[in-house]
Amino acid sequence: MTDQIVAANFGEILSLLARMPEGDRAAAAAVESRQAELTKPPGSLGRLEELVAWLATWQGRIVPRIERPHTAVFAGNHGVADRGVSAYPAAVTEQMVKNFIDGGAAVNQLCVLADGDLRVYEMALDEPTRDFTAEPAMTEEECATAMCYGMMAVEPGLDVLAVGEMGIGNTTSAAAIGHALYGGAPADWVGRGTGIDDARLERKVEAVRQAVALHGVGAGQPLEVLRCLGGREIAAISGAILAARMAGTPVLIDGFAATAAAAVLHAAADHALDHCQVAHLSAEPGHRRLNEEIGKRAILDLDMRLGEASGATLAILILKAAVACHNGMATFAEAGISGPSDPPG
Amino acid sequence: MTDQIVAANFGEILSLLARMPEGDRAAAAAVESRQAELTKPPGSLGRLEELVAWLATWQGRIVPRIERPHTAVFAGNHGVADRGVSAYPAAVTEQMVKNFIDGGAAVNQLCVLADGDLRVYEMALDEPTRDFTAEPAMTEEECATAMCYGMMAVEPGLDVLAVGEMGIGNTTSAAAIGHALYGGAPADWVGRGTGIDDARLERKVEAVRQAVALHGVGAGQPLEVLRCLGGREIAAISGAILAARMAGTPVLIDGFAATAAAAVLHAAADHALDHCQVAHLSAEPGHRRLNEEIGKRAILDLDMRLGEASGATLAILILKAAVACHNGMATFAEAGISGPSDPPG
Repeated sequence: MTDQIVAANFGEILSLLARMPEGDRAAAAAVESRQAELTKPPGSLGRLEELVAWLATWQGRIVPRIERPHTAVFAGNHGVADRGVSAYPAAVTEQMVKNFIDGGAAVNQLCVLADGDLRVYEMALDEPTRDFTAEPAMTEEECATAMCYGMMAVEPGLDVLAVGEMGIGNTTSAAAIGHALYGGAPADWVGRGTGIDDARLERKVEAVRQAVALHGVGAGQPLEVLRCLGGREIAAISGAILAARMAGTPVLIDGFAATAAAAVLHAAADHALDHCQVAHLSAEPGHRRLNEEIGKRAILDLDMRLGEASGATLAILILKAAVACHNGMATFAEAGISGPSDPPG
Repeated sequence: MTDQIVAANFGEILSLLARMPEGDRAAAAAVESRQAELTKPPGSLGRLEELVAWLATWQGRIVPRIERPHTAVFAGNHGVADRGVSAYPAAVTEQMVKNFIDGGAAVNQLCVLADGDLRVYEMALDEPTRDFTAEPAMTEEECATAMCYGMMAVEPGLDVLAVGEMGIGNTTSAAAIGHALYGGAPADWVGRGTGIDDARLERKVEAVRQAVALHGVGAGQPLEVLRCLGGREIAAISGAILAARMAGTPVLIDGFAATAAAAVLHAAADHALDHCQVAHLSAEPGHRRLNEEIGKRAILDLDMRLGEASGATLAILILKAAVACHNGMATFAEAGISGPSDPPG
């Protein structure tokens, strides 16, 4: 990807969005043809079958594989955290990065189980974005640089990229992005994040209302929404998702904040997320609405709300299961099994 | 278990139902106490946390584990299959058993991925149960013998037991059990199974209506419901679930037919399924209603409708993830991470 990133400005990003490659429909057709011959009633593996066809499309392989799953966690700090919108102090972002590096977080255990790599990207943690209730969170250069940084997380040849984030205050940012892109009431987009009390919840709703009113940006200017209301880790995820598309890498999007990053791309180009699946439905209430807006159904629904790519890494196991069934099952002919008595309806 | 099974009659089954052990609440409390100290906001792993506490309760271990997952698939043939209620001929039951043994089915691939054992139990495949639209499917001795056979699948020391079935015609049996236990209209309980056309769907609804009307059995006589409307593999699953309770083994229940087997126990004693989770929500429409009646929320919802313990074996991966996070994560104290700024609401 790096050769394609020539300047940290929105012009380059828009140029990539204008030339996103399509998936490999022939590979998907080959997968669907094999699925019809496997020893099961047609369609009876449900979404597992759909996921294998999707992997084939975006890996461009008729025999999809998940041998090199890769999890990327981007960490950033938010000026809005000073407004008391989180249950935890901003210092926790950096402390959790250390925990990722030391192997003590949930995502570490899940990466081991999925036999995958974990990379953690610190996004200038000592330089929080500006408080977006008072001014834009980032300049164009800062936002585009963060996106480019995210793009560089996409190495060639990954079988799947699971993306997530860590950033105290970033569900406030995600809620503001959702509200700016899709309207509704500020409270529709705001949840308790790490577990805030009613007083902080009120402050969080007010911060979202105030920020979106101040900047006056909407779905017609998605990169401006990202710049004014996002954070460096959110911009990095937008960049990583876009770079994955250019590289032919399927993406598992984690929870609420990661999906807000994806929604910015979707607002810019409505087929921008065809190579993505939303890994799980977050317990944050705004996530359901975001998924509806971008037309995705989450793979898992386990009331998780941790972030740090935990849901995306967990969903790698479901992809592995889908691929294992597809590649390993016998066909009706191989197993000598009778077909339907009449054509299945 | 075998020493507890002295006679193949319902009296012995009822006696076991009357002396089911409770779970280990102290082990669950120890797990919950540790969860509060792990480096994540309280409750943010959602159902993964709930599943670890449940495993602790029923394994009786303060450090739950999934090292020996075990999948049991019971196969039986149904007289009602002659009524043309399935898309496939009854011979497929035995052919699929051979496929399980040869390693070619979906459940084989999933067992390899979950690093688990698979056992397949043939239940007198050359002797289908009687057509329950005309007479009871089984005698009491046949039904109780099938339950005892299922009980013997529970070896000591299993970390979890995933139970499922194979049997052409058995979604008709499951629908009849649901309709008999919980009422509603026959059509509420009937789906397309392996993929039947409209004509067969009508025959299937009529078979369910006719059978339930003929036998006149209901929730007050759950073992009679099982005997009149069940099948050998369904009775075996009821037996396996009950034996697992006696042995302190948590159970993952597969889809529609396996949940019908579980519902029989629930109707007999409303805490009989406390050691069970429903692994996935089947695409068969009656499964949602069954889950509501027995008070379970499925772990996965992937539109699967294959049976053969495929959903239950897939859910083992989620249990492994839950246990990996719980046992492997650092505590706040170990990682030197700040707690909440204020108590989470």
